[in-house]
Amino acid sequence: MTDLRVAEVYGPVRESLDRMEQNLLGVASPRFPFLADVLGYVVESRGKRIRPAIALLASRFSEHDYEVTEKMAAAVELLHIASLIHDDTSDESETRHGRATLSSLWGRDMAIQVGDYVFAAAAALVCETGSIVVIRRFSETIMDLARGQLHEVVDTHDPSRTREDYLDRISGKTASLFGVAAEAGAMLSGVSADVVDSMRTYGRSLGLAFQIVDDILDFEGAEDEVGKPIGRDLANGVLTLPAIIAMERSPNGNAVRDLFRDPGNEVYLQRAVAMAQVPAVIEDSYDVARGYIQRALDSLEGMPDVPARDSLSEIAGYVLTRRK
Amino acid sequence: MTDLRVAEVYGPVRESLDRMEQNLLGVASPRFPFLADVLGYVVESRGKRIRPAIALLASRFSEHDYEVTEKMAAAVELLHIASLIHDDTSDESETRHGRATLSSLWGRDMAIQVGDYVFAAAAALVCETGSIVVIRRFSETIMDLARGQLHEVVDTHDPSRTREDYLDRISGKTASLFGVAAEAGAMLSGVSADVVDSMRTYGRSLGLAFQIVDDILDFEGAEDEVGKPIGRDLANGVLTLPAIIAMERSPNGNAVRDLFRDPGNEVYLQRAVAMAQVPAVIEDSYDVARGYIQRALDSLEGMPDVPARDSLSEIAGYVLTRRK
Repeated sequence: MTDLRVAEVYGPVRESLDRMEQNLLGVASPRFPFLADVLGYVVESRGKRIRPAIALLASRFSEHDYEVTEKMAAAVELLHIASLIHDDTSDESETRHGRATLSSLWGRDMAIQVGDYVFAAAAALVCETGSIVVIRRFSETIMDLARGQLHEVVDTHDPSRTREDYLDRISGKTASLFGVAAEAGAMLSGVSADVVDSMRTYGRSLGLAFQIVDDILDFEGAEDEVGKPIGRDLANGVLTLPAIIAMERSPNGNAVRDLFRDPGNEVYLQRAVAMAQVPAVIEDSYDVARGYIQRALDSLEGMPDVPARDSLSEIAGYVLTRRK
Repeated sequence: MTDLRVAEVYGPVRESLDRMEQNLLGVASPRFPFLADVLGYVVESRGKRIRPAIALLASRFSEHDYEVTEKMAAAVELLHIASLIHDDTSDESETRHGRATLSSLWGRDMAIQVGDYVFAAAAALVCETGSIVVIRRFSETIMDLARGQLHEVVDTHDPSRTREDYLDRISGKTASLFGVAAEAGAMLSGVSADVVDSMRTYGRSLGLAFQIVDDILDFEGAEDEVGKPIGRDLANGVLTLPAIIAMERSPNGNAVRDLFRDPGNEVYLQRAVAMAQVPAVIEDSYDVARGYIQRALDSLEGMPDVPARDSLSEIAGYVLTRRK
């Protein structure tokens, strides 16, 4: 999505997104100057704020007190930020989207504690919604995120992992947060349980597709300007959908197995990446993502015809076509 | 306290502590086998459970639904466990109380995610109390813990840090959790705001004294059986109360300044440790701890004369005399 297109799609919740941003800045102003500096750095705009946008759009099927959903939406983005901080600390990434990571700037010790602080700040903010059900869903989501990441670490360099393992992992590490964003938006706007269910399904399905496309893009294109190398997941021993599909197609004598037996072997890495880059493999991977996007779109059927619905539908289309 | 003495002091809440332990085991049984193993290891009894004991004792000034306070008490212990996991991961400790740390057994990546999971499990458990005020205080406590730890990291190898800096740090990293334990116990038992205030003061004061004694013990005795070397804080560049008092007494030409300028210099380390071990310095440090214990005891004045009050009073005495 171009910036212009984002402005249009986010149109129905533009003002709420601005106030969401203010909530983030509010969290980044503790009395402790060092912490204020670090938090200022991490809450600076670093993406499209797609998760809070979904949270806010999912709340617009019913009139309600926007202040409450704006706080929750900020809490969603804080969970996302906290989990990125800890993931970057785990795998010692130097940059993300072209910006230096916290752990590379201030060290891993700091990054662990700052991540904890941001998780807790999200929890404190969501308390202001006054809804114990929503607060509880947030706690469960942090557990899901951690479980998904742990699952990924445990599965590293294990070539026997299946499509089901993969879906379970990304369900925890990515879809859970998209799901709770949409679900909490609906809950806090006071709609019926059916609508809440539909929104949860929308969010979870979108999140699965989002991660699958992310993992496909890891195999696509030339090394881009931010310096992210191609096939980084495989190089790190992480099996994602394209590699799994490639292995399903040629179960014997494939390069992934060789690579995971001998990590760091550049020849095996090149061969394994090439297997996953086969057009039919990429196409099959996109088919799986398209299936989830269709499920997300289906869950919008029957929802009231308000501008937010069109935006949620456009976001689903964007997820399939985005290029990082 | 000997084990026999602990049994007596914890007597009024013995059954609740057993059910608290069951709550911990319940958290350690997720469907993901790897995580269940790791959690089983971390929730195994590893100490005196002093924080949940305080939480439960502080609730016994009024009849209430014990199930609620038992859950909260388990959440207190989980916060403690999660924060230990992340602290050990930050400073790469190999052991704690003679047991291998998570990060040394399973690696730092795992330990970061497991810590996140345990923090979130604490939050989810405290949601079951149904009290948003208590839930919010827990979130704030996680922020306090992280802020206290960050403060310590920021202050490392800075010889200009004062007693006030030190108290602010330990207020965050230790007293906050003791404080919320006692405060939440009181809140959930439905007592008046005055009693809640007294219990918060009891917990915070006890926590400050607890940490000060811990920091004194770092300078005392021979290297003990679990292999913790003497003066480890100073060796790590962390100024604690005895060293600060030693510096106040001889502001010029002292060994701490030399050590922090040249960390790793064994001669400076020995000299700096010797300065902090001077009996008058240790005595002054204990005086500060005694002051906080007195404040804790004062806050018990005027509380109803129930067995829990005697136990809280005994625990205060124990904190001053414990030997690790």
